[in-house]
Amino acid sequence: MFSFGVDIGGMSIKTGLVDEAGKIVSVRRTKTSKDASEDINNIVKDIESIILETKINRSEVKGVGIGCPGAVSSNSGIVDILPNLGWEKVPVVEMLKKATGFDVKISNDANVAALAETVYGSARGYNNVIMFTLGTGVGGGIIIDKKLYEGNDGKGAELGHSTLFLDGKECTCGRRGCIECYVSATALMEQTKEEMLKNKDSYMWSLCEGDINNVSGKTAFDGEAKGDASAKKVVDTYVKYLGESMMNMFNIFRPEAFILGGGVSAQGENLTKRLEEYCEKQNYGYKLSPKVKILTAKLGNDAGIIGAGALFN
Amino acid sequence: MFSFGVDIGGMSIKTGLVDEAGKIVSVRRTKTSKDASEDINNIVKDIESIILETKINRSEVKGVGIGCPGAVSSNSGIVDILPNLGWEKVPVVEMLKKATGFDVKISNDANVAALAETVYGSARGYNNVIMFTLGTGVGGGIIIDKKLYEGNDGKGAELGHSTLFLDGKECTCGRRGCIECYVSATALMEQTKEEMLKNKDSYMWSLCEGDINNVSGKTAFDGEAKGDASAKKVVDTYVKYLGESMMNMFNIFRPEAFILGGGVSAQGENLTKRLEEYCEKQNYGYKLSPKVKILTAKLGNDAGIIGAGALFN
Repeated sequence: MFSFGVDIGGMSIKTGLVDEAGKIVSVRRTKTSKDASEDINNIVKDIESIILETKINRSEVKGVGIGCPGAVSSNSGIVDILPNLGWEKVPVVEMLKKATGFDVKISNDANVAALAETVYGSARGYNNVIMFTLGTGVGGGIIIDKKLYEGNDGKGAELGHSTLFLDGKECTCGRRGCIECYVSATALMEQTKEEMLKNKDSYMWSLCEGDINNVSGKTAFDGEAKGDASAKKVVDTYVKYLGESMMNMFNIFRPEAFILGGGVSAQGENLTKRLEEYCEKQNYGYKLSPKVKILTAKLGNDAGIIGAGALFN
Repeated sequence: MFSFGVDIGGMSIKTGLVDEAGKIVSVRRTKTSKDASEDINNIVKDIESIILETKINRSEVKGVGIGCPGAVSSNSGIVDILPNLGWEKVPVVEMLKKATGFDVKISNDANVAALAETVYGSARGYNNVIMFTLGTGVGGGIIIDKKLYEGNDGKGAELGHSTLFLDGKECTCGRRGCIECYVSATALMEQTKEEMLKNKDSYMWSLCEGDINNVSGKTAFDGEAKGDASAKKVVDTYVKYLGESMMNMFNIFRPEAFILGGGVSAQGENLTKRLEEYCEKQNYGYKLSPKVKILTAKLGNDAGIIGAGALFN
């Protein structure tokens, strides 16, 4: 049996056929159009094109799963709002069901990434897993008993929108001091820039060729590797913010494994080892509790398609 | 069918026979002895005494559930540490199994309270429920799909040990700024005393007959009801702390209902209405999300026995 996984992104929509081992058998990519009907028609075309190419029987398809970077109502199958694509109140599940005849499910992009990594990726074999996606914002995914936990109407698992500092920085969600304001790639870049402006001699300026606009989520890590004290300060503070955010999730969920995904997670063990050390020092594990395995996501950009397909597992 | 529920407290252990409607059919209470073997023998005696009294058939008993206010290893059935009773590494599940012949399960006290309130109490009918117990500390309970979620080895659901203020007040768990440091009954009493010391004219002094040692979790609420400005300040701040703590849980779990239990929850609607108002103003619900019903626990002291018994539901 197979399923289709649709990964909706800001620039393009990827549609893939996924087999039961989580392998992408065939994939199509279409540019987004800023028109929901056109986007959905393109998904339908891509599905039909893959069926033609792979010669699979329609009865071998369990359904079409969608991962969407916006506010999704999982009960009604409606995308409430998807700012990057200009979608508002789009009944995408119903539209795709009608057009393809397949069963259709939808969830948000961080949720399906967590599902993919647990079923086929770095947390394979674990039952209870939490994931942070450290990108422009901080996405969250909750896997309980190998199944996605999404909360009422798919509106839970907003792990980035719990407080690290009450009354702290203003968050896009309307609250203040959310985890997202301190541990997203965006936040790390801000923290890097602030430190560079304080210290004009930092080697990070060379890494950016003198232009602060060239700062990325790598700058502080690269500077630290070169022995730059300012860069080390940025990384140490970031590790503290992220470590404390993760310990919150450890105490709340006590998962077996915790996955870091998104841009910043590309640091791999350079980051996860630091987090382990930080958590150990700060009463990692909360007294007599079992340790939580800290992992880096490994499915990369494929996680969206694979996880969307896995909604039919 | 029936189950036994054992509620271990600091001063006494209550053992009750619970029917399938969650009714306590018969109950015994024994003082704690500071000796684990003696305590467990007393539980066995109480179970046998109830069986004799009620004339139930042993085959009608599904098992013995225990709710315990300490660190419990749910996998091994061992109480790791229970400071009030001086228990350390007590294999209570194995000991009770041997002595009674019944199946035995154990969980922590806040967990079983949440289970009781969801199955038989104020959150009856809801599937996904989160509970705070506002007492000396802050206990947490997570119900997912009407079942208790305890985390790896029963060490999750420590909802009081996630941060409200990073680097804030020192917490008993070894971290800083945990929710528990701001919203427990203990914290509320501290906040009340601090405000009273700042304002010697506060009506709260009269409520305490001039002695600050008489401050309770009710003092600020009672003072506010009498129009005292200092008392109102304490309550407003407390509502903010609790409201933000709850919004963290709303965004993480997006449960259908949230229950407040423990001493402070005795305020009932006086507290829950304030929390609703606070959350509404502060982007309650996180954008397009469904509202969370805020409830007060209603099983009171029976929740321990009923919830422990419900471990066999």
